[in-house]
Parts: sequence; C-alpha cells; structure tokens
Amino acid sequence: MIQFSDFEKKIKVVFKDKDLLKQSFTHRSYINENPRTALSHNERLEFLGDAVLELVVTNFLYKKYPQYTEGELTSLRSALVNAVIISEVAGDIGMNDYLLLSKGEARGGQIRG
Amino acid sequence: MIQFSDFEKKIKVVFKDKDLLKQSFTHRSYINENPRTALSHNERLEFLGDAVLELVVTNFLYKKYPQYTEGELTSLRSALVNAVIISEVAGDIGMNDYLLLSKGEARGGQIRG
Repeated sequence: MIQFSDFEKKIKVVFKDKDLLKQSFTHRSYINENPRTALSHNERLEFLGDAVLELVVTNFLYKKYPQYTEGELTSLRSALVNAVIISEVAGDIGMNDYLLLSKGEARGGQIRG
Repeated sequence: MIQFSDFEKKIKVVFKDKDLLKQSFTHRSYINENPRTALSHNERLEFLGDAVLELVVTNFLYKKYPQYTEGELTSLRSALVNAVIISEVAGDIGMNDYLLLSKGEARGGQIRG
C-alpha cells in the first residue's frame, strides 16, 4: 500500500486534505482500469497546478533578473517550465513511486500525458 | 496632468508603490518619445501580470465548474483571457484614459502591443 505520508515527509509539506494529495497522483489510466474506485484522476488539478507553477516561476524570474526584458524572461521561463525538466525534477524527488497508473502505463515506464 | 489617484478611487484599490502603478500604464512608445523620463515601460510588469491573471481566472473556473473536464476548462479560459475581452474590460473601467503613449500611438487610438 502506498504511503503518501512518506512523500509528505520527503517534500516537508503536510497536506490538509489527503484526498487531494492522492488525487494529484492518480492518472486517468488507473481510473479506467479501476472503474469502481472512489478516486478521481488528476487532470483538473493539473489545470490548476500548471497555472500555479507558471506564476511561481514567473514571480521568481521577475525578481531575480531585474535587468532582463520581457522577451528574455519569457524565453527563460519556457526553458524552465517544460515537460523534460519537470519530469526530471519529479524523478529526483521520487514522485514516480507514488503515481497510481494502469498496469500497462506502469510497465511502459513513461507517462504519455 | 494625469491623476492616478482618480484611477485608484475608480477601482477601489490603493497602491502602496505609486511608481509601480505609473509604470504599469507606461507604454514603450512613451519612453521612446521621452528618453529623459525616469519612468520604465510596462513590459516586464506585463510578463508578471499575465501570469497573475492566468492563475486568478484558472482558480475561479476550477472552483466554479467542478463538473468540467480539464479540456473544457482550458477552452473556457482561452475564451475569457483573450486580447479582445481584456481590452473591452480595460475600456469599461476607463484604463485607456491613463495610458502614457507616444503622440502617434495616442492618435491611432489602438495599442499595437
């Protein structure tokens, strides 16, 4: 059984709503394979989280590089917020160990989206 | 002389840093035409503000439409956060009266970006 409390310890964040934490790790393929589960997949949370990540990175770059133009900042942000880098960071903090996937997706070792 | 305090009253927000408020209304063309001004143009703030607007709208839609999928929410957000709608809202609250533009841009009546 996956212990999300281990993940909370690892990232040093305690979630008020553990169901939301679990939902954030639930891939659509897991729901398809387990139609009776009470879980929802994470795609709506992804919609929200992408916008949070965008603002966090934007605010960081805006403050860190006061001499950069809007165009330079936009290029820098695109380079930072891309799927490859995010998946590397996710791997570094061990997020893949907690993902709820279908068996097929898990065997593939790659999340297709 | 443009009174930004009128604008603050209109939108019922008092800015701590009035220079930032003024900068947010300063178009690049104004700086080009007035090279000795101490003002900076608003493009870096636009980079930051776009990400704030994106998150505000995203959070609003996420909460308001719990039954919508990520795809539906994304389409709805694109329809809301577009240049035409934003410029209409800006017109409704009289923002165009405060914009610092070059004389050429001001005569044209259109902001090109």
